[in-house]
Amino acid sequence: MKPMPVTDSMFLALDTREHPMHVGGLALFTPPPDAGDDYLRLLREDLLTNSDVRDVFRLRPATPLHSLGYLSWTEDTNLELDYHFRHSALPSPGRIRELLELTSRWHSTPLDRHRPLWEVHLVEGLADGRFAFYNKIHHALMDGVSALRHLQSVLTDDPAARDCPPPWGTRRPPRDRVRPSPRPLALLRAGGRVLGDLAGLAPVTARVASEAFREHRLTLPLQAPRTMFNVAVGGARRFAAQSWEWERLGAVAHAAGVPRNDVVLAMCSAALRTYLLDRDALPDTSLVAMVPVSLRPRAGGETSGNRVGALLCDLGTTIADPADRLAVIHRAMADGKQLFGDLSPLQALALSALNVAPFAVAPLPGVVTHTRPAFNVVISNVPGPRTRLYWNGARLDGLYPASVLLDGLALNITTVTSGDTLDVGITGCRRSVPHLQRLLTHLEDGLNALERAVL
Amino acid sequence: MKPMPVTDSMFLALDTREHPMHVGGLALFTPPPDAGDDYLRLLREDLLTNSDVRDVFRLRPATPLHSLGYLSWTEDTNLELDYHFRHSALPSPGRIRELLELTSRWHSTPLDRHRPLWEVHLVEGLADGRFAFYNKIHHALMDGVSALRHLQSVLTDDPAARDCPPPWGTRRPPRDRVRPSPRPLALLRAGGRVLGDLAGLAPVTARVASEAFREHRLTLPLQAPRTMFNVAVGGARRFAAQSWEWERLGAVAHAAGVPRNDVVLAMCSAALRTYLLDRDALPDTSLVAMVPVSLRPRAGGETSGNRVGALLCDLGTTIADPADRLAVIHRAMADGKQLFGDLSPLQALALSALNVAPFAVAPLPGVVTHTRPAFNVVISNVPGPRTRLYWNGARLDGLYPASVLLDGLALNITTVTSGDTLDVGITGCRRSVPHLQRLLTHLEDGLNALERAVL
Repeated sequence: MKPMPVTDSMFLALDTREHPMHVGGLALFTPPPDAGDDYLRLLREDLLTNSDVRDVFRLRPATPLHSLGYLSWTEDTNLELDYHFRHSALPSPGRIRELLELTSRWHSTPLDRHRPLWEVHLVEGLADGRFAFYNKIHHALMDGVSALRHLQSVLTDDPAARDCPPPWGTRRPPRDRVRPSPRPLALLRAGGRVLGDLAGLAPVTARVASEAFREHRLTLPLQAPRTMFNVAVGGARRFAAQSWEWERLGAVAHAAGVPRNDVVLAMCSAALRTYLLDRDALPDTSLVAMVPVSLRPRAGGETSGNRVGALLCDLGTTIADPADRLAVIHRAMADGKQLFGDLSPLQALALSALNVAPFAVAPLPGVVTHTRPAFNVVISNVPGPRTRLYWNGARLDGLYPASVLLDGLALNITTVTSGDTLDVGITGCRRSVPHLQRLLTHLEDGLNALERAVL
Repeated sequence: MKPMPVTDSMFLALDTREHPMHVGGLALFTPPPDAGDDYLRLLREDLLTNSDVRDVFRLRPATPLHSLGYLSWTEDTNLELDYHFRHSALPSPGRIRELLELTSRWHSTPLDRHRPLWEVHLVEGLADGRFAFYNKIHHALMDGVSALRHLQSVLTDDPAARDCPPPWGTRRPPRDRVRPSPRPLALLRAGGRVLGDLAGLAPVTARVASEAFREHRLTLPLQAPRTMFNVAVGGARRFAAQSWEWERLGAVAHAAGVPRNDVVLAMCSAALRTYLLDRDALPDTSLVAMVPVSLRPRAGGETSGNRVGALLCDLGTTIADPADRLAVIHRAMADGKQLFGDLSPLQALALSALNVAPFAVAPLPGVVTHTRPAFNVVISNVPGPRTRLYWNGARLDGLYPASVLLDGLALNITTVTSGDTLDVGITGCRRSVPHLQRLLTHLEDGLNALERAVL
């Protein structure tokens, strides 16, 4: 048995029917050129015999005493691989639409706490001959970024390699192949730590924040408008996903003189604006996104590992002109990043905690319905390797993250830059965010409008 | 809003991750002879437009306040049919085995309490061209027997009829087309009522029971041996199902001079004996089954509606000879039925309550681990119409019930007599009852042994 940190056990306690606290990833593959008709059957049989399971995938909560909470992790000595690894098929006509529908269902069901907290689904039946993995893991074991990193770690850039481990295996001691990246829920977790363990720092936090807000044009927490996305969530999810050529975003970014991530935010802003306009639900004040940002260590400063900040970004959703909207977003991001750059690591963490803190109390009755939202939506980007990736010869065509929702946060947009595409995964509460898949069309329209405006 | 009876709300309170309180039914169909390639697509599209939803399928628990419990039902005015009605496919090779695997998964996931508590899954991809419905409904809305009755009510014995409603619809005011039948969990429910509301009757109950046990060779509750089936259960399920020709059972019953249901029990006894022997886990004393029985009103007595008794039956699992085992089972059932026949309705209910009462306290910590089981397994038979049934021209080939498990009851066998077959559905805890599907082979072997012994 391994003692469970209070932060892990907090994530297990939050894990209810309405808030299943698992993260997911949908990976879409093209079989290798030499694949025969029985490719997936052989693949599955091969995987089922591969019990080389990474340590973290053997952990389950020990002594699940509901009233006392989960206090430790224990190793499952009786891991049933055929429970965790599942084989599924799409109903006809086997389009991406059917794949997303099935992924939505899987992302809605809680994990069994009597077992290690993960599932891997191998999906056949795509009409175009491709196949997919949907992976699901509890946030107490791995946050979304770590889960994507883990999946990337079993891939390779060598199309000829055939020694890739299964999604639950491990190739080597994990190492960071890419730069540090923002972890939205890790921020909540860190926020809890700061607010709890370091309660004595509160005056410092307040001073840092008040100076920051006075001297900068920063978006204040709890000033975001009420929207249909900021409600208590049910247990069911909708998941939508699509890829965009990174080059298209690069062209807009270059012409406008802004980072590509600002273009991603501008696409999202356009999509949210159109979606809300269609439903006659666009607020008079602009929507605010929480954007986790990774901050480089200051030259000559402390080397305290990854620095991640929770930035609040005005999305400019009241502005009709796409170029003007992009400019507002760029200014908000630049100001925010500059402020975080001026802060010490602890100050940055304190400011982030202040930004996300309202969600620590969201599960309390009445908080979501009676307070203004801290922000309207989480939009995060996870940078991945820029080379084409393969898994035992199968080409990765897209890697789409499915995220956690919380009361007050019924919509999450997470993007991954992988190979030469931007892969977008949108997770929404099935009841609160109807016709979620329309956001995909609106994203494309948003990019089109930006192209027309700045190119 | 409709007030919720305390008994309904009790079933909602019991409904945890480990004890999802829904019942299921797997219905297997052969498409009509004139079905084209697009039969299932057209069927699905047609069903999706059919919003003629039976009232009970529109109810959801109102104001889900976890601490206070559910107090009333409310009508869902925004029912999303495409949430409740789902389209799925079997992975290759599309055998019954894959169908049962998928059914096991569906039967393991809890229903979303923010919505009406049911799901209907249309399944394509069986290699032999057949299709299936898996229906799932919360026990607070319908018990297993009512759910089967409901499904049977949308079927017809006319292969030419094309006006059958969808599984969530209703053809006409429900009427009983078949004789009353035993409802295992309704017994628990009734037991709770008797033990609660009629607490003043306790001395009567005790006297009735003590006389019964003194004068009859009756199986006593809480004297069943400990077995691997009588443990706390996890949330995951395994489901297995198969049909047998009713005529084969009839031949054995005729030759041995016993009711066919006794032959069903003897098959189950043989299967359990072999399964436990294989695992070196057969107890020295015989396993005890709880068998719900329907009792005819006494001639000239009170007409108090259906009378259902919970009978404890010695399964004779210590006996190697199949004919001797059948004889023991027959005697236990005959004695039990005679006793119930001699009791007044209230006395019969009180005795049943005494038999099942220990399960009312099973959810309390330590009860399952420290007391002897009241009985080892529930085996129930739901009589259905003896004619071939059709649904819009598709022929019903089997109707297999998937049941609820409770702590201490990790295995449930429910059978349906439908058309000219006995359809057997076995539900087990995935962790406690490994290789559940082997029970199907053991059932067939058990019937073979009976045929050799008595024919």
